[in-house]
Amino acid sequence: MLKVTLKKIASTLGVSTATVSKALKDYPDISEKTKRKVKSLAVSLNYKPNSFAQSLRNQESKTIGLIIPEIVHHFFSNIINGVINAATRKGYFVIVLQSDESYESEKKQIQLLIEKNIDGILLSLSDKTVDYKHIKQIINQDVPIVLYDKISKSINCSKVIIDDKKAAFNATEYLIKTGCKKIAHIRGPLKPQTTIDRFIGYKKALEEHNIPFDKTLVYIGENLSYEDGYNLMDQIIDDHPDIDGVFASTDLVATGVLTRLKEKNIDIPEKVSIIGFSNWFLSKITSPTLSTIDQPGYEMGMKAFNLLHKEINQIKQGMPVNHEVMEISTKVIPRNSTKSI
Amino acid sequence: MLKVTLKKIASTLGVSTATVSKALKDYPDISEKTKRKVKSLAVSLNYKPNSFAQSLRNQESKTIGLIIPEIVHHFFSNIINGVINAATRKGYFVIVLQSDESYESEKKQIQLLIEKNIDGILLSLSDKTVDYKHIKQIINQDVPIVLYDKISKSINCSKVIIDDKKAAFNATEYLIKTGCKKIAHIRGPLKPQTTIDRFIGYKKALEEHNIPFDKTLVYIGENLSYEDGYNLMDQIIDDHPDIDGVFASTDLVATGVLTRLKEKNIDIPEKVSIIGFSNWFLSKITSPTLSTIDQPGYEMGMKAFNLLHKEINQIKQGMPVNHEVMEISTKVIPRNSTKSI
Repeated sequence: MLKVTLKKIASTLGVSTATVSKALKDYPDISEKTKRKVKSLAVSLNYKPNSFAQSLRNQESKTIGLIIPEIVHHFFSNIINGVINAATRKGYFVIVLQSDESYESEKKQIQLLIEKNIDGILLSLSDKTVDYKHIKQIINQDVPIVLYDKISKSINCSKVIIDDKKAAFNATEYLIKTGCKKIAHIRGPLKPQTTIDRFIGYKKALEEHNIPFDKTLVYIGENLSYEDGYNLMDQIIDDHPDIDGVFASTDLVATGVLTRLKEKNIDIPEKVSIIGFSNWFLSKITSPTLSTIDQPGYEMGMKAFNLLHKEINQIKQGMPVNHEVMEISTKVIPRNSTKSI
Repeated sequence: MLKVTLKKIASTLGVSTATVSKALKDYPDISEKTKRKVKSLAVSLNYKPNSFAQSLRNQESKTIGLIIPEIVHHFFSNIINGVINAATRKGYFVIVLQSDESYESEKKQIQLLIEKNIDGILLSLSDKTVDYKHIKQIINQDVPIVLYDKISKSINCSKVIIDDKKAAFNATEYLIKTGCKKIAHIRGPLKPQTTIDRFIGYKKALEEHNIPFDKTLVYIGENLSYEDGYNLMDQIIDDHPDIDGVFASTDLVATGVLTRLKEKNIDIPEKVSIIGFSNWFLSKITSPTLSTIDQPGYEMGMKAFNLLHKEINQIKQGMPVNHEVMEISTKVIPRNSTKSI
């Protein structure tokens, strides 16, 4: 059979080989029209990439790497569970690594996984990762990678996300609809995208309901921990004694807020309403129970693996890779830390 | 160099080769004295086992398998975390598998890991595992295995455990010391050892404090879940309206008990005291906070990996393997669901 090369596709379509290569890898700087043309010709010519990386890749290890920022964390535990269950069904093993929210660990772990010749990587960016060279490099080596939860828009690969803006908008709007007028927001550090988007959603909900945005109502919880919520609540009450709502970026933070308000004998939800984010198990058992946003980790883990598996097979079969961004839907779970609408 | 065989050691010491083989594998039916003699001769003769399994084993994969009954579980998450951190420090990868408390899954996963040629296995027995052939088989193949948390005494290998009897004794005694006289126990299913031992500890504490054991005070929570505690509490109050203490086998069960008592307006701890087991994060945030037993999962995970690593190296170097049983200590964490002593 005639060996078809990038060059052949390029000359047939009258474009450069670089364009063909980029189109097959779904780069955003190539038009959709060109991508369609290149991909359909590649498929009809039975194009098989023939790089060294590719041949290595074909020695399947049936093992993928899952890099998780934090293992002891209800949401991420659910993701691990979803990934492992989906992988087991397809006969794959999952090596789990913890980045501990460290950029250096994340970089090193990706390198180790590549040396181990795993078939693909699932990655949620650490909070400290602000440069993406280490990820772009492996994408260029045709190693399938899917980002989940904490992603960056500037990385060109498949992603499984929730629409954090929409979810945060809904959480804040829910507080407004129950009568809150002065709502504090406890957000995470300035990166990653999730924390930025939750902040944007909060701000947008205020705007749409004609509540002026007040930047002194936005607080940063460096670790998004129970302690952050507990300690920041003192400061919030000092700064704004007339506060009537808190939208916390995680259920852990919200639980800290709730505990501190109870200690101060401030009535929840009559005086201050609280809404969290994630629907951790603990939100069902606090007193009062915690209103929150359901963010289905198990489903996210399953979908992330299935997307990765699809790409592993596409690359194995020499087919063009279609990157997808998959959104998992969220919803408000009203409980007793907010008033009824 | 002269190739030393089992036979040589056997003839030197005047015992059978079977005895030598068993002594090197630390079988309990060989006396400590014989084991010492065999092992010291083996070391001084630089004995290297030469089986096929052994040669396979020497192709190190620097990867171990961790089989966990349940991933979304605070205690087991901490174990995963401890194992992965210890393994990462030593340059090992960890493949995580979930048995889902199923004997069939456990058996299949061990087989898959062996085919994958991992260097060793960390295993906590599923609640449904009542026959140990699948484990004894791989021990006979010289695959290093360490059992953690849920173990069986009839398996001859290294183990990392907590003394569940002692911990349960302390929990029950704590209730007695705060004035409880009629204490119900919610235990798990009839196997594994942890649930048996916790029941024994409960019974022993009653006996030592001259409280007659009443078997109608022992309830079984099939899944040791929040729902189990919640639902069983109704039955406990119906059967024994004068109950004044509950020792629950897990914090989840205890939290269910606590929630149901609050709904029934039964004062905690004045009317009924509760103590749980594990010191999950949630025990700090229930209202009232939950007294419990601290069971350090992270430490257990670290120690289990380190023990496995030691055995991997012993086997690699052809040294006799010393099985160890390591105990992690626990303690009572008094909070507000029990009266003060």
